[in-house]
Amino acid sequence: MSRLVMKFGGTSVGDVERIARVARIVAAERQPGRGLAVVVSAMSGETDRLVGLARAAAGEGGNGPVLGGADFNDEYDVVVSTGEQVTTGLLALALRRLGIPARSWQNWQIPVRTDAAHAKARVAEIADEDIGASIDAGIVAIVPGFQGITEGERITTLGRGGSDTSAVALAAALKAERCDIYTDVDGVYTTDPRIVAKARRLEKISYEEMLEMASLGAKVLQTRSVELAFAKGVPVRVLSSFVEPGAPNPGTLVCPEDEIVEKQVVSGVAYSRDEAKVTLLGVEDHPGVAADIFGVLSDANVNVDMIVQAEARQPGRQNIVFTCPDREATRAVEAMGAVRDRIGVEDIHVRRDVAKVSVIGIGMKSQVGVARTMFQALAQKGVNIEAIATSEIKISVLIDAAYTELAVRALHTAYGLDAA
Amino acid sequence: MSRLVMKFGGTSVGDVERIARVARIVAAERQPGRGLAVVVSAMSGETDRLVGLARAAAGEGGNGPVLGGADFNDEYDVVVSTGEQVTTGLLALALRRLGIPARSWQNWQIPVRTDAAHAKARVAEIADEDIGASIDAGIVAIVPGFQGITEGERITTLGRGGSDTSAVALAAALKAERCDIYTDVDGVYTTDPRIVAKARRLEKISYEEMLEMASLGAKVLQTRSVELAFAKGVPVRVLSSFVEPGAPNPGTLVCPEDEIVEKQVVSGVAYSRDEAKVTLLGVEDHPGVAADIFGVLSDANVNVDMIVQAEARQPGRQNIVFTCPDREATRAVEAMGAVRDRIGVEDIHVRRDVAKVSVIGIGMKSQVGVARTMFQALAQKGVNIEAIATSEIKISVLIDAAYTELAVRALHTAYGLDAA
Repeated sequence: MSRLVMKFGGTSVGDVERIARVARIVAAERQPGRGLAVVVSAMSGETDRLVGLARAAAGEGGNGPVLGGADFNDEYDVVVSTGEQVTTGLLALALRRLGIPARSWQNWQIPVRTDAAHAKARVAEIADEDIGASIDAGIVAIVPGFQGITEGERITTLGRGGSDTSAVALAAALKAERCDIYTDVDGVYTTDPRIVAKARRLEKISYEEMLEMASLGAKVLQTRSVELAFAKGVPVRVLSSFVEPGAPNPGTLVCPEDEIVEKQVVSGVAYSRDEAKVTLLGVEDHPGVAADIFGVLSDANVNVDMIVQAEARQPGRQNIVFTCPDREATRAVEAMGAVRDRIGVEDIHVRRDVAKVSVIGIGMKSQVGVARTMFQALAQKGVNIEAIATSEIKISVLIDAAYTELAVRALHTAYGLDAA
Repeated sequence: MSRLVMKFGGTSVGDVERIARVARIVAAERQPGRGLAVVVSAMSGETDRLVGLARAAAGEGGNGPVLGGADFNDEYDVVVSTGEQVTTGLLALALRRLGIPARSWQNWQIPVRTDAAHAKARVAEIADEDIGASIDAGIVAIVPGFQGITEGERITTLGRGGSDTSAVALAAALKAERCDIYTDVDGVYTTDPRIVAKARRLEKISYEEMLEMASLGAKVLQTRSVELAFAKGVPVRVLSSFVEPGAPNPGTLVCPEDEIVEKQVVSGVAYSRDEAKVTLLGVEDHPGVAADIFGVLSDANVNVDMIVQAEARQPGRQNIVFTCPDREATRAVEAMGAVRDRIGVEDIHVRRDVAKVSVIGIGMKSQVGVARTMFQALAQKGVNIEAIATSEIKISVLIDAAYTELAVRALHTAYGLDAA
């Protein structure tokens, strides 16, 4: 008996007609000897509506999770989790209408246990016995993504995008052959096709590459879901929910590195415009100063990415440059301003019109000259590099945001990624 | 430690502002030594929206419960039950915003067990231990009405109006001092105030009278909730959710007969226009024919109310008249038409422009001349009586629907019910 987990996001289940289409896609995957579980999101727009109601009831403005009072988040979860429950019932009905045995499984029925961090919980354990026996008996299981219950039997949600993680966690618990994530794109591309017309769909990509892609702004899969797939060894396929049910739909398989025979030096080019560059000028140079600065930033909840340190003109002083998400730049500057005199910083500059461009590839591990190709390609186009960061399988550069498309196209060509 | 159960319907929790108002009403009922549980309906319009989605997914038209396929009703319940869950979370948030400890209790968390008759389940048992301990500790419990779970851990709903029943069942399980049902009227009246300007709010009414009132079309409380309150001895108060929180709001207490000191001969005048009169002419008169006819009607799911039998002109023949809800008249005539020749019925007539007017009062049990007062009052206004039915505490007459208001007003005056 093999098992397959399928996951459909909010756009794919946006109305009753689309849910009927999803039912036909699920029907096309039924085979003798294969059990199916389907993880679904709330119908698009529903989560926003429910979040708005919860915030209004709690007396909070805005549209994000009710984070103003952590004491409120348990009931926020009670409200918001209903969105996915509705979809589970509707999809079960749509499948039965096609004559296919199906039933919904709420998280408390399985159960799916999480920690107690309401509104941003993490899946801890999924009991596979009952649901596993049911799908092995040929009954399609429909499970609400993005949620679970605590040891104390309270409802939790995983935070935005958590449905991908739910699907991977369920696939791991069920020891599924694969987790198919249906989305509004037909796979993972070598870069953003809106920028580079010659971008190609990848047939396979390693977990590690996908992790770098996801965290660098290629918003196909949620980062945590890829981490979990990597840790549990669950093959994940990204494919389109908008092709005809049963039609060819290969998508992109996210899998272990050793299953990729022809390893590209560079598999993809990613970019992110949500970047800000903060420069601390004339920082007093003594041991522990960097630890002090980045401790302050961490306390202020600033996600620091790249860090560059260089000697300043004055002796005994240095300049420290770091990047963070653009929306955190103001917080970062305020936090540094508050400790400026204590730490000894002469001036603080912030630049918000910057972008990060990265090349990613597992082949990089065993290949020299990869960075040189990058720097040459950018230099030929007159793109100035403001900062550099590298990992085993990634090289990132910070550049003027105006050059983003130019840089991405140049790198896509330089690494031989352009489609014929 | 005393306990109070409060219940708010869909109109009372129709938007976030109204939910905030309900929170203030609940706050005003808090007292040292008293635990509170609040049963809520879905926000008005939500259940209709969810029913519409479920029917569309199942491929059924119309707007009622998914009864076309009983096999679909378990998932219908999964979809529809989310409406109340949303309200529980929102009210808990609104109470905490006022600084009042509160939490939602979903039916699976309590648990509230029902039978497995999806979409029209009946409450079987409520575990009071956990929720009872929590409310005794001063935490207001918010419970979704209209639903429960089966022994097999599936979600059920009780059918429309089931929230009143949920509240009474919870009050019985918690051994509450009383169940307060907040609604859009401020109590039970001697008759419909839209018809009789001099109608008075009753301070108290017995369970038996309320049952007759409810089943006769005074739609204040759902019949099953009154039956349950009667059986379990739960005092129920009907009061308005639209007066200022904390302001006087006596409502009407539904209680045992022996708690009503001054028993009125007649407590109220009820009417129903949802009536049809079916006449079977020239029915062959032999033993068992009535059992045959009403067996056929029962099989056709027709709720027969009044029955009158009289000799026909031909010897050996009789005429049989019965009434049923207007929406079942067509079904009744079809069912009788199908067996007409076998049973021996000469002709079938149906009249749909009829109304039933009833006087109700526990004092009737020990009083003579009550019926005569009724017939005289109607005769004086020239109202013709088409059929009569009586119980221990009720006299009903079937009349031409055009005379409904006239008859109700005449009877209200004749029994001395008019306000001074």
